[in-house]
Amino acid sequence: MSLKVTILGAASAKPTAGRHPSAQIVNCNERLFLVDAGEGVQRQMFRMGINPLKLSAVFISHLHGDHLFGLFPLLSTMALYGRRMALDVYAPSPFGEILDGFRRYFEQDMPYDVVWHEVDTTQNVMLMENRTLAVWSVPLRHSLRSSGYLFREKAPQLNVDKFKIERYGLDIEQIVAAKRGEDIVLPDGTVLPNGELTYLPREPRSYAYCSDTSFSPRAAEIVSGVDLLYHEATYTDSERKVAGERGHSTAVQAAEVARRAGVGRLIIGHFSSRYKDLQPLLDEAREVFPNTDIAVEGETFTA
Amino acid sequence: MSLKVTILGAASAKPTAGRHPSAQIVNCNERLFLVDAGEGVQRQMFRMGINPLKLSAVFISHLHGDHLFGLFPLLSTMALYGRRMALDVYAPSPFGEILDGFRRYFEQDMPYDVVWHEVDTTQNVMLMENRTLAVWSVPLRHSLRSSGYLFREKAPQLNVDKFKIERYGLDIEQIVAAKRGEDIVLPDGTVLPNGELTYLPREPRSYAYCSDTSFSPRAAEIVSGVDLLYHEATYTDSERKVAGERGHSTAVQAAEVARRAGVGRLIIGHFSSRYKDLQPLLDEAREVFPNTDIAVEGETFTA
Repeated sequence: MSLKVTILGAASAKPTAGRHPSAQIVNCNERLFLVDAGEGVQRQMFRMGINPLKLSAVFISHLHGDHLFGLFPLLSTMALYGRRMALDVYAPSPFGEILDGFRRYFEQDMPYDVVWHEVDTTQNVMLMENRTLAVWSVPLRHSLRSSGYLFREKAPQLNVDKFKIERYGLDIEQIVAAKRGEDIVLPDGTVLPNGELTYLPREPRSYAYCSDTSFSPRAAEIVSGVDLLYHEATYTDSERKVAGERGHSTAVQAAEVARRAGVGRLIIGHFSSRYKDLQPLLDEAREVFPNTDIAVEGETFTA
Repeated sequence: MSLKVTILGAASAKPTAGRHPSAQIVNCNERLFLVDAGEGVQRQMFRMGINPLKLSAVFISHLHGDHLFGLFPLLSTMALYGRRMALDVYAPSPFGEILDGFRRYFEQDMPYDVVWHEVDTTQNVMLMENRTLAVWSVPLRHSLRSSGYLFREKAPQLNVDKFKIERYGLDIEQIVAAKRGEDIVLPDGTVLPNGELTYLPREPRSYAYCSDTSFSPRAAEIVSGVDLLYHEATYTDSERKVAGERGHSTAVQAAEVARRAGVGRLIIGHFSSRYKDLQPLLDEAREVFPNTDIAVEGETFTA
């Protein structure tokens, strides 16, 4: 079991020769999710050896081009490569209209379905779950409807303590019941509480993506305690006013969210093109939240 | 005066990590024209030091994504950078509808106009001209409406032979008239034909772009005698049948167009992703038309 994030791009809207716009791959137990899809995302995936046909779902934070323009070339490529598996896309409205236009003008006969799930950017709700993972929306504050995404691994199956199995002479049926979380009643009527017999083999991991957004105490509450947080940090603290006006955060504000939320580790990204050197952003963030790193393209962070 | 072509991308629809989809810059006397706009075109321009704000016009061959998806991020970036100068876009129908969708969902308040000029892909007509250049459409044969583009420099102003000026004692007024192409009448009634007095300082140059298309004798006729021809060569000759079915050309067919048209030099591009090594395509083309080269990204070819 694992929860890993690979950065494909961490630039903001104005492009630079050296950085790509927002996109990343969340890998949860070898199921792949694309979070945001700035221009060039498919080429970045090819460069990093990530097969687009393996994508399970796409999560789009908001409908600004630097988070979305790479999706349509990617959808076309998957059609060319004969994808059959439906692709779920979670995105705010009116993504469906944009998708309809794409289909009408570019892909009238796609060999797979693209299924849009509307994200209500005012709600913190569970959007999808499978056996090992649930993904939740995180309301953000931006110049247009924007949602973060919270990936929570489910608790792994309980292990049963082998010393207890021996001591109480548990049979297969009782062991399976204990793994399901049930208490066990011995032949003499003694009740063994489940908590005495079992343990979690490891803690489930969690990851949250918050971009684009201005400083949001509500988002900090929702992502409370995650192991890994990606938070936009478009500007240095000297541009705090500009950041607020444009629905963006400074590095200090990103770190403040991480501090309030008590996360394990912070990655900052979505850097303004004005910063050739990102060290000042990192330095400012680390003063508030030391366990901070830069979202370097091509790097993989483990939650 | 000069006519130069810089290759931004020469891949076909299936992307590869190493090659970008179709896009190139035609530079005619420092006026810049973008021909096709595959994904990543703006990033390629930044990498090669080409300022998008200086683009005069865009020519789109056809409405397949690998020739168009890079245009919209580029339009957005020019808006972010505050472009004011209108941008002419020459493209087949229904480009206008796609542009309307882009404006509606992504750029409601663009600070500059995008003016669409519909290209009739069945006609060889002049689309635009300025003081030094005219651009013509070239009907192509593809799976959907597709047009090539022919860039013809206008003849430069005539120079007047300074020995003739001395010999006949021409005054300023007569020299200016001769530069305009007029014959000169001397005081004694002698008529000096313009051709005796003047010469072209250099030949006007020409460049044609033909992609995507299957083999087209008509296109070969239209681009007859151009100094530089870019022609798609998606496949090797062994795939001639596939090429025809898909509205594409083999390298041999591209070279055959160059040979029939008697062009100065051929550049082949739009390579299928199946060819890691492009040498076989080049070898096949050179057997028919020796002065052939590969469209290498980042390289500039002078007409």
